[in-house]
Amino acid sequence: MAKQKKSPRPKAATPKGFRDYFGAEVTERAEMLQTIAGVYHQYGFDALESSGVETVEALGKFLPDVDRPNEGVFAWQDEDDQWMALRYDLTAPLARVYAQHRNDLPLPYRRYAMGPVWRNEKPGPGRYRQFYQCDADTVGAGSVAADAEICAMLSDTLEKVGIPRGDYVVRVNNRKVLNGVLEAMGVSDEAQAADVLRTIDKFDKVGESGVRELLGKGRLDASGAYIDGVGLAEAQAEPVIAFLTSKGASNAETLVNLKAAIGESAVGAEGVAELQEIAALLDAQGYGEDRIVIDPSVVRGLGYYTGPVFEAELTFEILDEKGRKRQFGSVAGGGRYDDLVKRFTGQAVPATGVSIGVDRLLAALREKGRIGSNVQGPVVVTVMDKDRMADYQAMVAELRSAGLRAEVYLGNPKNFGNQLKYADKRASPVAVIEGGDEHEKGVVQIKDLILGAKIAEEASLEEWKDRPSQYEVPRGDLVTKVREILDLYQ
Amino acid sequence: MAKQKKSPRPKAATPKGFRDYFGAEVTERAEMLQTIAGVYHQYGFDALESSGVETVEALGKFLPDVDRPNEGVFAWQDEDDQWMALRYDLTAPLARVYAQHRNDLPLPYRRYAMGPVWRNEKPGPGRYRQFYQCDADTVGAGSVAADAEICAMLSDTLEKVGIPRGDYVVRVNNRKVLNGVLEAMGVSDEAQAADVLRTIDKFDKVGESGVRELLGKGRLDASGAYIDGVGLAEAQAEPVIAFLTSKGASNAETLVNLKAAIGESAVGAEGVAELQEIAALLDAQGYGEDRIVIDPSVVRGLGYYTGPVFEAELTFEILDEKGRKRQFGSVAGGGRYDDLVKRFTGQAVPATGVSIGVDRLLAALREKGRIGSNVQGPVVVTVMDKDRMADYQAMVAELRSAGLRAEVYLGNPKNFGNQLKYADKRASPVAVIEGGDEHEKGVVQIKDLILGAKIAEEASLEEWKDRPSQYEVPRGDLVTKVREILDLYQ
Repeated sequence: MAKQKKSPRPKAATPKGFRDYFGAEVTERAEMLQTIAGVYHQYGFDALESSGVETVEALGKFLPDVDRPNEGVFAWQDEDDQWMALRYDLTAPLARVYAQHRNDLPLPYRRYAMGPVWRNEKPGPGRYRQFYQCDADTVGAGSVAADAEICAMLSDTLEKVGIPRGDYVVRVNNRKVLNGVLEAMGVSDEAQAADVLRTIDKFDKVGESGVRELLGKGRLDASGAYIDGVGLAEAQAEPVIAFLTSKGASNAETLVNLKAAIGESAVGAEGVAELQEIAALLDAQGYGEDRIVIDPSVVRGLGYYTGPVFEAELTFEILDEKGRKRQFGSVAGGGRYDDLVKRFTGQAVPATGVSIGVDRLLAALREKGRIGSNVQGPVVVTVMDKDRMADYQAMVAELRSAGLRAEVYLGNPKNFGNQLKYADKRASPVAVIEGGDEHEKGVVQIKDLILGAKIAEEASLEEWKDRPSQYEVPRGDLVTKVREILDLYQ
Repeated sequence: MAKQKKSPRPKAATPKGFRDYFGAEVTERAEMLQTIAGVYHQYGFDALESSGVETVEALGKFLPDVDRPNEGVFAWQDEDDQWMALRYDLTAPLARVYAQHRNDLPLPYRRYAMGPVWRNEKPGPGRYRQFYQCDADTVGAGSVAADAEICAMLSDTLEKVGIPRGDYVVRVNNRKVLNGVLEAMGVSDEAQAADVLRTIDKFDKVGESGVRELLGKGRLDASGAYIDGVGLAEAQAEPVIAFLTSKGASNAETLVNLKAAIGESAVGAEGVAELQEIAALLDAQGYGEDRIVIDPSVVRGLGYYTGPVFEAELTFEILDEKGRKRQFGSVAGGGRYDDLVKRFTGQAVPATGVSIGVDRLLAALREKGRIGSNVQGPVVVTVMDKDRMADYQAMVAELRSAGLRAEVYLGNPKNFGNQLKYADKRASPVAVIEGGDEHEKGVVQIKDLILGAKIAEEASLEEWKDRPSQYEVPRGDLVTKVREILDLYQ
């Protein structure tokens, strides 16, 4: 420490893009993760916890000739000059774990994982460089029964954490259907396919006619700038328009429309058949279309995944920063990705999974008032006579033995006002006071701080006098009286 | 992916010194952390979760002129050339958080934190570069009542996680007593004081006469090498010997001995008075000396801390790698460190806290057979006819609705033997089988895999025939029969 005295004081600040979480923010997340883990466990998924650090090679995002591979991840070189990095998701580590331990793991391997991931990206409002993910994946199951199971589990999970049926929907789509559409359009060039994908992503904004323009010659956007088109012939756009507008009143109707959109494409037919099978499996288990529905408008992730794709959306409205109503939106997404393990082993291993955005889901529940409204602090035993600390400690010990949350004031007890301010800052429901007089009489004062605050806020002076919020009880009744007050506010 | 096909396959391996945790390893730790958090919460401690990444400046271990400050930590430079690092403990981040948010936090601030920390150290057997810590600290309370509270809470925590009274002891010492001893010895030079500290640390190995030699001229060690002594006069050693041998049959006796060891030293007297007060506070709350005891042999950490120091030790014996009996040893430690926040703010803020070595504590509970003996896998519904997957999914949905853990086999169903091998690898207690015949007859086969394995292991062929481990029941009795079998193994 001696050397540091001369240097300027360090700044007490989180690094840019990171934050601290306090009290209920931490415990509410922990409870949610535990609830989700409970559902995953019941479905036969086993926990896996890999470390936050992986070799850059295993994460596999980077080329060996990049000098400093910290694009997107936090990376450094260890003493053997090997590049290491913080994991940016839980899927890449799963692929590494599965490849490394495959001889010891069951096949198929259902696993769940939860924990922080790190992104070396520009932080923004509400966007942090460390955040939680909560994933469940099935490795080694090629059947779409695995995808259907993930969808059912996602639906169960949302209800279990407190999103009522009707306030969410799990939408299912399939990358193979899109491939079929591309085939029906006569698009086989990879770059052109990517352009079509990007255009599809804009469907929400520019609508059917906008997509037609963007697939053809191009389009003047709202700002007056001309956006170059993909350059397809007019007729080529038909399958993709049919695809984008194929959502019917029921899964059956949607499937008929999709069949029309893919024309003669074999891979497209395979995709439609998979969706049909998923729908049938979910129906057999009682998951109606109000919970899980085929929806070709799910395009997010279509580029990354290789088969079924799913997304959970919360459908209730909230007010955005500008006071406008909007739907809460997506809280989870996933799909089938069949090539991740192959990077390591050379053998293709089918896999499918889902990732829940835990922090977004928590935000949704707070928005709906389902959590966080009723955070109660501990009972605070004040210190009137610092030489009698042992007595006060005995009181909190009694309260705790009765299962109550309680603490003694540990600051400088000289100023009693500070003790009550402290209790206030702690959101304490009850303060216990025992001065010399009380001690002699064998009583304690028990202050109902919630009622006290209410009276102070609402009541006139007369009312205030009539409604005492402080009770004198025999010392032996301490626990009983405190519990009686706490029970009022449960 | 196209570019990677040409490069060699990445190695599927955790970075050196890191490991993966599977199944019960993860859930048992999560349960323990939850139990500990429950006790901390009841004591009025609030959760805090800071991110894994801090600025190196805030961690404060390093000098600004070091080119690459990765000694002991994993560090890297961000895009603004600022050095960032993974936290190496939970105390340094607490100091940063408190300094940063002190205007919004209650004073005193009781907080707990749990999570991984990272050390860039040479890994060894059982020593990993990422491991869990679980800390509770009180910032802003100068009174030793805060230290006594931490000791009481530590005792409660150990019992709550499953260490019975009598199998652990929390030992308390005080750095100020040692300072008093140094004063009584006439040692004021810092370097010499550090030499004395190092010598004290060897008391266990070399005993009283060894310490006398090492404090004086030096000593021939067992290997024949001569160890230079501190060079004190013979009489100077007396106070430290008195200190090291001061443990009496009771706290009262120990305190009398300590008073003798510190002679006229004022700081020493302060230290003894603090220990006396801690003992009185704990006694008033009913924590006997069988649980928390004053013990001057706690020297670990005396150099780092500024006042009371505590250590929780498990006292039962285990067999080490070589089959020798030894005590399990320390699972938690802590003490008062009054200068950590001052680095940031210039103002001294008293603080005290404890850190529990969660993984060591888990190892102890496993050693004692208190956890981990009875891990049961899910019920496995096998697939006899892959076209009837919907029926099998309906079965697992029924089992789950009844609160049971169940899954359908999602691998290739062609080889039925593989399905049973899978159930075995999953530690499944029960397999459900419904082929075409069963389906027609409206029945299912329910296989008790635990009994089956037992019979296969123990019974002769005749016995095996007499003791069926497979039951045919009506389809409607699926849940009832499965539950009946599971209840046998609870």
